[in-house]
Amino acid sequence: MSQNGVAPHRGKVLTAETMNPNIRRVEYAVRGPIVQRAVEIEKELKEGVKKPFSEVIRANIGDAHAMGQRPITFLRQVLALCSYPELLSDKQFPEDAKQRARRILQGCGGGSIGAYSASQGLECVRQDVARYIEHRDGGIPSDPNNIYLSTGASDAIVTMLKLLVSGVGASRTGVLIPIPQYPLYSAALAELGAVQVGYYLNEESCWSLDTQELHRALSQARQHCQPRVLCIINPGNPTGQVQSRKCIEDVIRFAAEEKLFLMADEVYQDNVYAPGCEFHSFKKVLCEMGPKFSDTVELASFHSTSKCYMGECGFRGGYMEVLNLDPEVKAQLTKLVSVRLCPPVPGQALLDLVVNPPQQDEPSHAQFIKERSAVLLSLGERARLAEELLNAVPGISCNPVQGAMYCFPRITLPPRALQQAQSQGQAPDMFYCMRLLEETGICLVPGSGFGQREGTYHFRMTILPPTEKLKVLLSKLRDFHQRFTTEFS
Amino acid sequence: MSQNGVAPHRGKVLTAETMNPNIRRVEYAVRGPIVQRAVEIEKELKEGVKKPFSEVIRANIGDAHAMGQRPITFLRQVLALCSYPELLSDKQFPEDAKQRARRILQGCGGGSIGAYSASQGLECVRQDVARYIEHRDGGIPSDPNNIYLSTGASDAIVTMLKLLVSGVGASRTGVLIPIPQYPLYSAALAELGAVQVGYYLNEESCWSLDTQELHRALSQARQHCQPRVLCIINPGNPTGQVQSRKCIEDVIRFAAEEKLFLMADEVYQDNVYAPGCEFHSFKKVLCEMGPKFSDTVELASFHSTSKCYMGECGFRGGYMEVLNLDPEVKAQLTKLVSVRLCPPVPGQALLDLVVNPPQQDEPSHAQFIKERSAVLLSLGERARLAEELLNAVPGISCNPVQGAMYCFPRITLPPRALQQAQSQGQAPDMFYCMRLLEETGICLVPGSGFGQREGTYHFRMTILPPTEKLKVLLSKLRDFHQRFTTEFS
Repeated sequence: MSQNGVAPHRGKVLTAETMNPNIRRVEYAVRGPIVQRAVEIEKELKEGVKKPFSEVIRANIGDAHAMGQRPITFLRQVLALCSYPELLSDKQFPEDAKQRARRILQGCGGGSIGAYSASQGLECVRQDVARYIEHRDGGIPSDPNNIYLSTGASDAIVTMLKLLVSGVGASRTGVLIPIPQYPLYSAALAELGAVQVGYYLNEESCWSLDTQELHRALSQARQHCQPRVLCIINPGNPTGQVQSRKCIEDVIRFAAEEKLFLMADEVYQDNVYAPGCEFHSFKKVLCEMGPKFSDTVELASFHSTSKCYMGECGFRGGYMEVLNLDPEVKAQLTKLVSVRLCPPVPGQALLDLVVNPPQQDEPSHAQFIKERSAVLLSLGERARLAEELLNAVPGISCNPVQGAMYCFPRITLPPRALQQAQSQGQAPDMFYCMRLLEETGICLVPGSGFGQREGTYHFRMTILPPTEKLKVLLSKLRDFHQRFTTEFS
Repeated sequence: MSQNGVAPHRGKVLTAETMNPNIRRVEYAVRGPIVQRAVEIEKELKEGVKKPFSEVIRANIGDAHAMGQRPITFLRQVLALCSYPELLSDKQFPEDAKQRARRILQGCGGGSIGAYSASQGLECVRQDVARYIEHRDGGIPSDPNNIYLSTGASDAIVTMLKLLVSGVGASRTGVLIPIPQYPLYSAALAELGAVQVGYYLNEESCWSLDTQELHRALSQARQHCQPRVLCIINPGNPTGQVQSRKCIEDVIRFAAEEKLFLMADEVYQDNVYAPGCEFHSFKKVLCEMGPKFSDTVELASFHSTSKCYMGECGFRGGYMEVLNLDPEVKAQLTKLVSVRLCPPVPGQALLDLVVNPPQQDEPSHAQFIKERSAVLLSLGERARLAEELLNAVPGISCNPVQGAMYCFPRITLPPRALQQAQSQGQAPDMFYCMRLLEETGICLVPGSGFGQREGTYHFRMTILPPTEKLKVLLSKLRDFHQRFTTEFS
């Protein structure tokens, strides 16, 4: 390097100064400093350090099994059969589970989930996904060739963004994302060096999206970048709203008029709890708006095995459906995913079961429905409970948790708390959440990790702790908030 | 967009012209046009189209199970137990399999492999990996905090490259990679916009690496970029050589002198067949060279569950060990992997079994050893068979397959074949391989997909077809090569 006249940095090739500056700019609050501190505290508790609490309650991440939700029996039976096909002759497994396992194994090279699949995913799984989408969308056709299986939804979202980002300076791709957003988006955009264009959701009307705000964000962005993509998260993360059909139509019309590529993150499509709310897929609404839209608007929509009733995050299963993609671009997409060979095959198998669950005349149907309903019913209860108990605390206000797995309440922080946070170089809600963690063991994510209107403060809390633990959490949180408010008033 | 004065492209937002140009430049031969044509031919055969062969023989990719290799019983038993823990009370499973499954499940959130793991990977698995490395390297310590589990080795390799790439123009990061190389490297560098700096392996001395060639490549590269990384693949892919200890020492000395970050791709570390050859890990050699090197040279080394005796590609398991990484960079790495949440947990579980297999006093030991030895013995036989039969064909010469899963023979092509290829706009070895596929059903990858010295032609062939099928393949290949040579002479 000395030949180049560049001084070596403290002897290391790779330092914070020499590393990729885009990576340095990446932030991901869901596993940020709060969670690192929570891990430390758990270790301290194990080592016998005295704390005002006996356990850390993690409500920072949508990780259902970690919070005690049990796996759905049918899914795991089929996965065991696929892993160890000798079990196919074992009488303890129901016939429908065996039939699913046989079909998946037949789709695998050499009949083994240890073989690479096609890079786009196993064909039989893509067929089942397409049939599932058709059924979900009232018969609107879905082509298995437009389905790409992925390593969780995150993988597919980043892949799509990768294709979309180009240009330099004022021609650099701008990507519209909601504020508050799920920080995968801001992280991916930072990594790719794309321009993040935030549009604010309207907290006053249950985190709804209005197109006026989209127009504002877009025209402002056009002064310094080239906005080409509009990302929607529905049901919302971290905000828990469910978009109305009318709103989706407005968004599609806006995307069509303004020539924006639509990315619809719909991983919480089965997590809808509020009466009167219903999930409408962007694909369905787009197709029902007629050929002017359905033949032109480019759409990628995303789903995952990590959420809904199954919560199988560890398997990293997911898919994306693309619509109206330019054929050359589609070939490029297929090439790009082939470099990583294939998504994990156990995750593909799991996805197959999610989109092709036991049917009414099959032996596993009754138990499957019972288990699934119990999870969804309980999540709905916890959504209402969280909203109700949070709103009962003076200084906290929370929109209804219409869907997804999170509430995102607004918290009023006294001016002296803001000053103290500032003096410590912390965002005020980070200061709040860190204090909460140290005093109560409750692990939440500060609103600043998702974005929020200036001068407002929030946190994201999952509704995943079991009901009794959630009640304890909410009561501790109430007491903490009152103490905190008193201390800094 | 019209506001910006940019003309819309045939109505689409995303086209080959507007997409990310780095992605457009990505190539990945292992799943390129030859393989796409192979898939079409398989469909044609199914539909009853008459061909001079009855099946496609895929020798294009290191996918052991797809070629008929059976999974190792112990690995799959534990995976079934982890997937469906109800089986833990089933007497058909041996106690050591249950003990492994219990340990893994205890390490998982909520005792489920459906929970996210820590982004760096399950702690218990990282501990086992560290212990495995220590044992492999004769007791040299390995720290679980330096282990990052990954989605196959590819994921970790790309992650490390991402951190390393920065700068613009002449300060852009250059990455030294072998030629021939495994095309993940060229693809990742194209995607990241890094500068690929090829150093040629010496075909005349069994694809060995000499430091003179490294010096040549480096000084030439320094004229137009800033070389900061040196990638080594040992045992070699696609070239099948196993590096000597002396050669590894030379490389390490070169990296230290020239201030290069070392990346050692060691996914074939258990695939060594040739007498007198032995795998030496870069970590071990580095540490044994004394503190001048072991305290300074930055190293990332990679391993995978996809190769060796297990060949479990579909699970996408892998790990990387980092050494002498700057602590700030390590924090950045941990942050970066957290955005993707975690590697697939079934793949992590599988990796745990690979690094912690049945011990001598455990019930599964005998069968495990028997199965593992059978695979490795047979691979060694096929390595010798391929070399021998290829070298018996006039116009084909093949180095010994000392390790890995591939031979990379050099083929002599008659001048008229070169002309014909040129007139079709194809690389000559692509023309050759495409003809081979159409006439015999044999699917290989042309050498041009890996890089080779100008004017030389090769193909990569795996040694994975079962012995009898491999013999058929090699005999068909011999006949084809003779026909082809006659036709174009």
